[in-house]
Amino acid sequence: MNAMSPISPISRLLHPRSVAVIGASADATKTAGRPVSYLVKHGFSGAIYPVNPKVERIGDLACYPDVASLPGVPDVGIVLLGAERAHLAVRDLAARGCAAAIVLASGYTETGEEGARRQQQLVEAAGNMRILGPNTIGLVNLSDNIVLSATGALEMAHFPVGGIGVVSQSGGILGALLSRAAARGIGLSKLISTSNEVDLELADFIDHLADDEATKVIALYVETVRDPAKFRNACLKAARAGKPVVAFKIGRSEAGAQAAVSHTGALAGADRMYDALFQQAGVIRAQTFADLLDIPAALATGRKLHGKRVAILTSTGGAGTLVSDDLGMAGFDTPPPDAATAEALRALQTGDHAVLDRNPIDVTLAGLKPDLLRGAINVLLQSPSYDALTIIVGSSSLAMPELLAGVIQDCLPNSDKPVIAYVSPHAPEVGALLTQRGVPAFAAAESCTAALRAMFQATQLRPQVESSAFSETVAIDDLPAGSLDEHQAKQLFTRFGVPCAGERVVASPAEAEAAARELGGRVVLKILSAEITHKSDVGGVAVNLTADTVGARLTAMAADVEAKTGVLPQRFLVQEMVGAGTELILGMHRDALGTAILLGMGGVTAELFKDTTMRLLPPGGGLSRADALAMAQQLKTWPLLDGFRGRPKADVEALVTAIVAFSQMAAQLGERLLEAEINPVFVLPQGQGVRAADGVVVLG
Amino acid sequence: MNAMSPISPISRLLHPRSVAVIGASADATKTAGRPVSYLVKHGFSGAIYPVNPKVERIGDLACYPDVASLPGVPDVGIVLLGAERAHLAVRDLAARGCAAAIVLASGYTETGEEGARRQQQLVEAAGNMRILGPNTIGLVNLSDNIVLSATGALEMAHFPVGGIGVVSQSGGILGALLSRAAARGIGLSKLISTSNEVDLELADFIDHLADDEATKVIALYVETVRDPAKFRNACLKAARAGKPVVAFKIGRSEAGAQAAVSHTGALAGADRMYDALFQQAGVIRAQTFADLLDIPAALATGRKLHGKRVAILTSTGGAGTLVSDDLGMAGFDTPPPDAATAEALRALQTGDHAVLDRNPIDVTLAGLKPDLLRGAINVLLQSPSYDALTIIVGSSSLAMPELLAGVIQDCLPNSDKPVIAYVSPHAPEVGALLTQRGVPAFAAAESCTAALRAMFQATQLRPQVESSAFSETVAIDDLPAGSLDEHQAKQLFTRFGVPCAGERVVASPAEAEAAARELGGRVVLKILSAEITHKSDVGGVAVNLTADTVGARLTAMAADVEAKTGVLPQRFLVQEMVGAGTELILGMHRDALGTAILLGMGGVTAELFKDTTMRLLPPGGGLSRADALAMAQQLKTWPLLDGFRGRPKADVEALVTAIVAFSQMAAQLGERLLEAEINPVFVLPQGQGVRAADGVVVLG
Repeated sequence: MNAMSPISPISRLLHPRSVAVIGASADATKTAGRPVSYLVKHGFSGAIYPVNPKVERIGDLACYPDVASLPGVPDVGIVLLGAERAHLAVRDLAARGCAAAIVLASGYTETGEEGARRQQQLVEAAGNMRILGPNTIGLVNLSDNIVLSATGALEMAHFPVGGIGVVSQSGGILGALLSRAAARGIGLSKLISTSNEVDLELADFIDHLADDEATKVIALYVETVRDPAKFRNACLKAARAGKPVVAFKIGRSEAGAQAAVSHTGALAGADRMYDALFQQAGVIRAQTFADLLDIPAALATGRKLHGKRVAILTSTGGAGTLVSDDLGMAGFDTPPPDAATAEALRALQTGDHAVLDRNPIDVTLAGLKPDLLRGAINVLLQSPSYDALTIIVGSSSLAMPELLAGVIQDCLPNSDKPVIAYVSPHAPEVGALLTQRGVPAFAAAESCTAALRAMFQATQLRPQVESSAFSETVAIDDLPAGSLDEHQAKQLFTRFGVPCAGERVVASPAEAEAAARELGGRVVLKILSAEITHKSDVGGVAVNLTADTVGARLTAMAADVEAKTGVLPQRFLVQEMVGAGTELILGMHRDALGTAILLGMGGVTAELFKDTTMRLLPPGGGLSRADALAMAQQLKTWPLLDGFRGRPKADVEALVTAIVAFSQMAAQLGERLLEAEINPVFVLPQGQGVRAADGVVVLG
Repeated sequence: MNAMSPISPISRLLHPRSVAVIGASADATKTAGRPVSYLVKHGFSGAIYPVNPKVERIGDLACYPDVASLPGVPDVGIVLLGAERAHLAVRDLAARGCAAAIVLASGYTETGEEGARRQQQLVEAAGNMRILGPNTIGLVNLSDNIVLSATGALEMAHFPVGGIGVVSQSGGILGALLSRAAARGIGLSKLISTSNEVDLELADFIDHLADDEATKVIALYVETVRDPAKFRNACLKAARAGKPVVAFKIGRSEAGAQAAVSHTGALAGADRMYDALFQQAGVIRAQTFADLLDIPAALATGRKLHGKRVAILTSTGGAGTLVSDDLGMAGFDTPPPDAATAEALRALQTGDHAVLDRNPIDVTLAGLKPDLLRGAINVLLQSPSYDALTIIVGSSSLAMPELLAGVIQDCLPNSDKPVIAYVSPHAPEVGALLTQRGVPAFAAAESCTAALRAMFQATQLRPQVESSAFSETVAIDDLPAGSLDEHQAKQLFTRFGVPCAGERVVASPAEAEAAARELGGRVVLKILSAEITHKSDVGGVAVNLTADTVGARLTAMAADVEAKTGVLPQRFLVQEMVGAGTELILGMHRDALGTAILLGMGGVTAELFKDTTMRLLPPGGGLSRADALAMAQQLKTWPLLDGFRGRPKADVEALVTAIVAFSQMAAQLGERLLEAEINPVFVLPQGQGVRAADGVVVLG
């Protein structure tokens, strides 16, 4: 340790100057022999301390009987003992001042109660020392050629070293990523398997990699985020450092949480919560596992995509169309060259069969002539018509991959536009070569699209967490516990600033008639009950009534509901009928990730189309107006609010105010608020505001 | 030619006993030298006739000065001449009685008018002889080791031979498919590039491959279908022969056709028409280019998937979850083993760390012990809990791929359930080995899902084309040409048996009032005009009126429309207001593929969600009731018709009748019907029928 500038334990873990291997075997073919063997083989320049009371030497290294005997304090201890004894080694390492222990053994929480007890024992033994694992396969610092693992999957002859730091909650997946990246020529900086995360977790390594000079992009394989706030902060730190974070999250097919009362639970679901978390943390979500390498490979070039117009340069017809078609489906443009660009291409004399006035730009013969290819690439990179270039590699280019790669590489410094390649025949070695030379190469059109989409997204990202402070504290001490009835729920919404439809509580036909006259116009009649929430299912809702008809309808409804439920309703709501406007749902959902606000299309098809957006409540307040507006704009049905097909524009300002108000209610009530939903809230034409027309609140 | 059983020209093309090569070069490194060199190299057992007046011998072969001098009639002539002279060789080959010419030259319709003229010349020169091409890269008969091509992309040292016949409209793509299949161990039977299709086209080869014993599955790369009826018939023939047809269609991003009057055009689009064609022809549509190999590789095993419950056997944790998650998103189940299956697994003693009561079934240690692995596979294949098995290959299995493949292969005969593999680390050679041994192996979870989904689909397919005959001929001679007004359109719908909302044409407030009284209840008032089709955009629609209010509203509407359009409307419709029911769109769309009927969700969000299904009109009538019902059931919003969330079930019988009636109208009017759309048609509760409430018809 350098006393002048204290080095963090995670930094010592990833860049150790000394490593103790507890339980090391002298037999390099055994699992317990691997860590020492890997360290030696890759030329670890620090001290290696094998620890094993039964062995005197391992290769050229002295072997120590126990941790206490070590000639120096190790930065890292790799613990190869089983779950029954690992905590003893951890205790000894902690006592010596070791920065971090890597515990490989399995048999902890993943196996049940007894394992959980052992895991707790491990924590206690570690004290202030950090632990990676248990049940981890360790880590590899490729930038510095250090393998801290006993797993064959992390051992390879040649790692392509590069700018992508990978953190995975699954060890097996980390091995798969390493071998797949190597075959693709995709360079990695650090690989870390966090697994059980008894101490060090995903967020700790994101935070570290944000500072790591060798790392330009951070790729995550996520099973669960244990501390959402820490995760978000680490991702925002990476964003500030200009390092995109890309995450693939498993568990997408989990059924939505089953909420008792509101629809929000069914619409929200665990995976939508992760969508919200990632979006707010500025994390680019990989849609497929392949994307988790494809996207970082593209982002690691550091090139920026500022628009959606892509030039496709091809020497083979079909594949260019394939890529163009997929880009088109994702909203990219592949426009033909402008006149000046076409002229510049023609001036290259690319041959009779070249098709220069369309895109894909087909230079069948030029594909074989380096100077013409160089010329065409430069013309397209300079062209004001294009924001990116995709080069199609056909079978004719396979004979001279070095030449092809060299030509493309030469052109790269002339522009900062993204240049990617699609390799049409099976030629992984050509793809790897191009990738290594700075041109990420893909074998699927969908990968090209995912890469360019992510590059565009990364250029747009400005993640930050904004909250709306409470304008004034709303009194909440008087609120009852349990399910509120509809009228009470709306009173609560109103108290926090969400406008509700006018209404009166009545108990008789005469009162209903009086209420209808007072409200004016057409009214809705509903039973009022904290118990029956699906009122229409029991015949407890009637619309389009007048003062003349509401009294008789009340009598009929009372009888109908009694017949269906066995209970004669005593109280009713007479509510002004909100005629026009767009029906939305505004709800609250809470799970392990936090409390989120959900905005969705309402109406009978809501659950069929699930057109919803979510945002997690930021620390210290409700959602910002900007976030509330972005939520509305992300709905597929946003055009309905925005003057679609001649409709009047909706009062989006008022909607934003209502979302912020609802979110502040959720923030201020905190854990007391168990469920809350306004369904529907009507957004009226501009200047006319919004009206909550029905709602549910359950308080703890 | 065998006079006893005439062999078809296509059969002679794919299985030639003699091949003439017109313009052959003696230099095998030149393009023109390749065809003869490929034929010789792969041991072609028939006669090879090089034709070149400047050369006497090519290798051991005599070279002939012209086609007339050939010692026998060639089954196939490969024409290597340029577009200027190719037709001369074609004429000579035709004169000798050659079955088919393969014309490789480019420079035809793909280059413009002059090329189109040349292509016509080619057709005339061929007479009754068949042509493959021009602008083709030829074909490869892998089953019989015959390469008829001058293209390096179709030349490989070792082709894996198998049961997949590939037909591609792009030569470059054919080469890519061949090299990718070879690397994956996927065996092909025939590869044909049809390209310009001056004569022989996609459908001809589907028809042939349906009879080809070596071909079990047909894979198509489609740019356009020139003759939809022929295509459908060929695909149905393949289906009858038990050979699934899988198609990848390019052009998915094309913008929908812009129809002048109806919404149907915007909702239909060229690609949706192909969806309809493929669905009705029983063609499984590949969603990605990768699927075009992945799905046939799975189907070529001939194994049947009868349900959606998949066992996942893994020796590595993360990857099993990855596959399970993706399957779950696609609607597959990965249930835990039933008690008996779990017991049988435990009896294998798969080791301490095996997790046998969940799925993925994790046999970490058993993965390394062949007998345990064999036992586990057999238990899962016998288990009544599972319809298919996915085996996850982790890095620990890579050391002994032959052993792994052997064990799995041994188990295959014990069951006809699908068995596929997911290879988690980069190990293409292991995947290829497994695929060759009958276990299709994939490197992406999405590929596993696509393969199993297609296997399930193939088991369900019973394609046949049914039409509903016209029950009686409807008189149509009296119909005017041009745009019908709404009332005329509805009269036409009524004539064909589509029920319409009751309505009266009126010209004054007094007539409107009388009409409203006659119709009873609430009414809708609309301007009636063949010119103004978007009536509500000009203030020409008012709903929820009574006999008391309709007169005044008419006066106001007339003034409003005049202010907006400059024209004072003279005629109006008073229509009964259809209160309840589900709003749908029923439309007709026509493009090069034919005439299709479109059914879609109606209402303001129709164009945002595009929830539609289409069917092409079958020959000789309208749609069958079965097809009409299937259309409704395929809508995402089908639950709205089927008693969703306590709604009354809709009158689906009446909807089916209306769809059939509308389709019969389209069938009988044929080309005269330029546009037709009912928007909306309301489907009322069971027993109450449907009502067309507005519509458009344009007649030619």
